[in-house]
Amino acid sequence: MPGGDKKQEDGLVGIGMDSCVIPLRFPSLSLVQTTDFFYPLVDDPYIQGKITCANVLSDLYAMGVTSCDNMLMLLGVSSKLTQKERDVVVPLIMKGFRDLAEEAGTSVRGGQTVINPWMICGGVATTVAHTNEIVMPDHAIEGDVLVLTKPLGTQVAVNLHQWIGNEEKWAYVMSVVTEEEAEKAYQRAMASMAKLNRAAARLMHKYNAHGCTDVTGFGILGHAANLAKVQKNEVSFVIHNLPVIAKMTAVTRMFKNDAFGLLKGTSAETSGGLLIALPRASAAAYCKDFEKEDGSQSWIVGVVEKGDRTARVIDKPRIIEVPNKDTEDQLW
Amino acid sequence: MPGGDKKQEDGLVGIGMDSCVIPLRFPSLSLVQTTDFFYPLVDDPYIQGKITCANVLSDLYAMGVTSCDNMLMLLGVSSKLTQKERDVVVPLIMKGFRDLAEEAGTSVRGGQTVINPWMICGGVATTVAHTNEIVMPDHAIEGDVLVLTKPLGTQVAVNLHQWIGNEEKWAYVMSVVTEEEAEKAYQRAMASMAKLNRAAARLMHKYNAHGCTDVTGFGILGHAANLAKVQKNEVSFVIHNLPVIAKMTAVTRMFKNDAFGLLKGTSAETSGGLLIALPRASAAAYCKDFEKEDGSQSWIVGVVEKGDRTARVIDKPRIIEVPNKDTEDQLW
Repeated sequence: MPGGDKKQEDGLVGIGMDSCVIPLRFPSLSLVQTTDFFYPLVDDPYIQGKITCANVLSDLYAMGVTSCDNMLMLLGVSSKLTQKERDVVVPLIMKGFRDLAEEAGTSVRGGQTVINPWMICGGVATTVAHTNEIVMPDHAIEGDVLVLTKPLGTQVAVNLHQWIGNEEKWAYVMSVVTEEEAEKAYQRAMASMAKLNRAAARLMHKYNAHGCTDVTGFGILGHAANLAKVQKNEVSFVIHNLPVIAKMTAVTRMFKNDAFGLLKGTSAETSGGLLIALPRASAAAYCKDFEKEDGSQSWIVGVVEKGDRTARVIDKPRIIEVPNKDTEDQLW
Repeated sequence: MPGGDKKQEDGLVGIGMDSCVIPLRFPSLSLVQTTDFFYPLVDDPYIQGKITCANVLSDLYAMGVTSCDNMLMLLGVSSKLTQKERDVVVPLIMKGFRDLAEEAGTSVRGGQTVINPWMICGGVATTVAHTNEIVMPDHAIEGDVLVLTKPLGTQVAVNLHQWIGNEEKWAYVMSVVTEEEAEKAYQRAMASMAKLNRAAARLMHKYNAHGCTDVTGFGILGHAANLAKVQKNEVSFVIHNLPVIAKMTAVTRMFKNDAFGLLKGTSAETSGGLLIALPRASAAAYCKDFEKEDGSQSWIVGVVEKGDRTARVIDKPRIIEVPNKDTEDQLW
């Protein structure tokens, strides 16, 4: 498209990250802005509201930006809901969104709601930041390691949960997972998707992160590839470890050629963690600090090698069950 | 809703205007931001893209803000379109949006596209402005006059155009309008909706406007009432004149009780003009200057009186046909 496209590319920092950094007329200040809207994927409207908010903010956090000046809420209310259903569901989605915005130290001022055949949830997050508050994503160097701050497998867990009670579908997986385990995985996925990547972003500054993206629709490999593509140095990302919500690996193995793509690193995630390139010497300290601040595990999942700005998952990646058996009791 | 609602009200300047003004950490700077998304209403995708962009930006212009730092584009692509239709329609909508953004001196960096049963067009406009670049809407005083910068009747014209070729519907109006006149009104409505309110906003500063809103879904009376409600002084707005796209008044009179609400001031508009409270002594100069800068007419439509922060249209408002017969040839 004449004119438009070129400018759009200039503004986008990192393809697939959907976050733009725009220098303002005012010295040292940039506008950092992102939008996302999509369709509900969990059956709890309050949690869905939180997931929406976490997912929108995540693009700011991936830039190391930890404050948000304003959020807008975008809602489509399904024309198929009865008035009574609307009166219950819509306020709960809005409350979830607002509560998490408040937890993130921001608030929702403005937005738009329309009637639509399908429910739509989304938002806009905007901040004005000093240049030094932004972690540019393109400084990874050979020898860095990659850290991931949330486990993979959210969409597998969401799908699996929908199959409970469906005899035909459940037959595929019943030899490897119980309904109770499926329920537990779903709860863990919801908690993970509804969690802010804010502490993960804050620590990027402390530990001098060289680049970051958040893991969503393209899976860890897709987003790693997008991040690799924009690097200044001739590097590639190699992923050795896949931290996966417990039992989801067994589930995905029941499908021909790993249809979800979980073991290939291509399974879609919603509101996934940050994937961060960190100096090797800092990574362990980052993970330790993250556990202290956020109460959650993070994992060293790969390395930055000399290369041609691509990403790959090794042939037989190590699967890390999250949580593993030993820690499950204390985590739940 | 706990917490959220209160903050939302603080941030909204003028109910129904969907524009927020948020003081930033940086002295004298505010974030001004607005979003809007809706369904297409004209059959030309390129013009629809322009209308979308003009409509989104209009909320900034209504605050006297004439620069926009960034736009995001929000698109829902109908699942009912064939791949071939998509390949034609979507790029045209995007091109219309971007071309008008460029005309407005801004550009589109970021956005989101989803597949949806219905087409959705929308966007986000954001700017960081010095406090003195914003015209606060709440300073109207007794004796001010109200100026409108685009004619009314856009949605009547859009509906009328859809009836061409539909014998049953056309029968209602054929005694007062020809197909040619309906086509002309539709073209005028499209041109009006696709036009930026930017010159109108710029001149608000020059002529010391006391308040402003843009006319959209609630009609001129609805938006006048919203603007009246937020005034600091005890004033009311009285509308005497209704500038209406030629022939649309005759059309609306054919429907029982003016079903469109055009003569009552409640007919919905899309991407309508600015409704501005101006000092009486400046209004004529504003309109003259506007015609010079924008090439379009504007009209003094009402007055600000002492009152209880309400708005009304007088009993038999004067209808101004736009364009009138004498000027039609030169305008077209």
